[in-house]
Amino acid sequence: MKNVLLVLAHPDSQSLNAQLLSVAQEELQAQGHTVVVSDLYAKNWKAVYDERDFPNRLDETRLSFVAESGHAYRNHTQPSDIVEEQAKLMAADAVVFQFPLWWFGMPAIMKGWIERVFAYGLAYGYRDEGNRFRYGEGGLQGKRAVLSVTVGGPESDYTPRGINGQLEELLFPITHGTLFFSGMEVLPTFAAYDVHRLDVHDIEHTKAALRARMRSLFDDAAIAYRTQNGGEYPDRHILADEIARGCTGLGVHLR
Amino acid sequence: MKNVLLVLAHPDSQSLNAQLLSVAQEELQAQGHTVVVSDLYAKNWKAVYDERDFPNRLDETRLSFVAESGHAYRNHTQPSDIVEEQAKLMAADAVVFQFPLWWFGMPAIMKGWIERVFAYGLAYGYRDEGNRFRYGEGGLQGKRAVLSVTVGGPESDYTPRGINGQLEELLFPITHGTLFFSGMEVLPTFAAYDVHRLDVHDIEHTKAALRARMRSLFDDAAIAYRTQNGGEYPDRHILADEIARGCTGLGVHLR
Repeated sequence: MKNVLLVLAHPDSQSLNAQLLSVAQEELQAQGHTVVVSDLYAKNWKAVYDERDFPNRLDETRLSFVAESGHAYRNHTQPSDIVEEQAKLMAADAVVFQFPLWWFGMPAIMKGWIERVFAYGLAYGYRDEGNRFRYGEGGLQGKRAVLSVTVGGPESDYTPRGINGQLEELLFPITHGTLFFSGMEVLPTFAAYDVHRLDVHDIEHTKAALRARMRSLFDDAAIAYRTQNGGEYPDRHILADEIARGCTGLGVHLR
Repeated sequence: MKNVLLVLAHPDSQSLNAQLLSVAQEELQAQGHTVVVSDLYAKNWKAVYDERDFPNRLDETRLSFVAESGHAYRNHTQPSDIVEEQAKLMAADAVVFQFPLWWFGMPAIMKGWIERVFAYGLAYGYRDEGNRFRYGEGGLQGKRAVLSVTVGGPESDYTPRGINGQLEELLFPITHGTLFFSGMEVLPTFAAYDVHRLDVHDIEHTKAALRARMRSLFDDAAIAYRTQNGGEYPDRHILADEIARGCTGLGVHLR
């Protein structure tokens, strides 16, 4: 049995996001897993990363977030809310992020959770080694992650040639650049589209689909991003010429 | 002469971001433009979009951000901080966003500026017409926008086959999905890389490059994103078969 952290970014307990969070929680518990929830709006999460996060400064004259993050993490001088979320994260075998897609990304409150909790020395600069451990290795290696998003627009807008861009490519800064970067295995995104037009039947269908995803959370194949240190980026972290030869675009980072 | 709004997301007045903001401001003023600054940390900008932004609710039982945003914008019941920023935005002929790239996106405080200021009826759902005016048309049509970012990593990581993904594709949810979506012409991103390793000479070089970009702010060619209503997305907003035939990836949305 595993530990799962669910992170929620919607303030309304009646919202589809809150309903999906509950569905995920119930299904995971039914499977025997232990579930912990971080309901960011309910806990009035401090979204803004600022000098108050570094009560014991390395340098009082200049604020370098990277340097101060490493200093605070290393010396155990982070604020208690960050420490608590890091403890939940480190105890988790998998993390589910449940949020409405706002301007093709996470709500600010959840972005601020990433910024404050994903410290230097842990989620980046692992072991104070700069970029040595990254993309498949790092402080969060061995954990799984999945985004579960509600989307206002129709699914066709998010298809490979849809006007918004493909959903998984829009989320690449999060899935690849944040979660895989830190060492996590990232599962394909779960998305509910056209959420303002769903009827009762559609919502039940969506919930059933999420339940199925939660049942296979520890079995599903992760997105096949290329690892930094597996040999595919031999020179200055640029993809080797012979791999996806002549191609560009975010898709080249997928096996 | 034009009006330019500069939006800054860094709390340290000595930071490279603050220095670049000042450089942009000085250069634009030297050109005779009128410059207004929104220094988000200095003004303690409320980053979290929540029920406090809708003091006069359309529906007290469920919180739909889309519905309440439209209701508040339409009925002039938005909080004063949002109204003030919308007034600055609407007065501007161009907007410069100055921020450090955190997890391949905007800091939460700036994401929260977008979420709260880019209201339904204005930046999306223009004229209460749903998705009719979008990508090249909309409430912000006629304005220019440019992102100016500081980046911790080396430029090679952000090249077309660099491990992070190409910078302009990582920023696509902002440049295409937010700014062009709302009708703005978006200029190529200005980026300073490896910012923790810059010496005095490098910083002067970066500032000179930004000054040059500010001098040509109203002359530079915008990123050639395809417009929604120009005929290239004829059916359900999917790119016509004969355009970039067989291709996928975010790059297909560029002419």
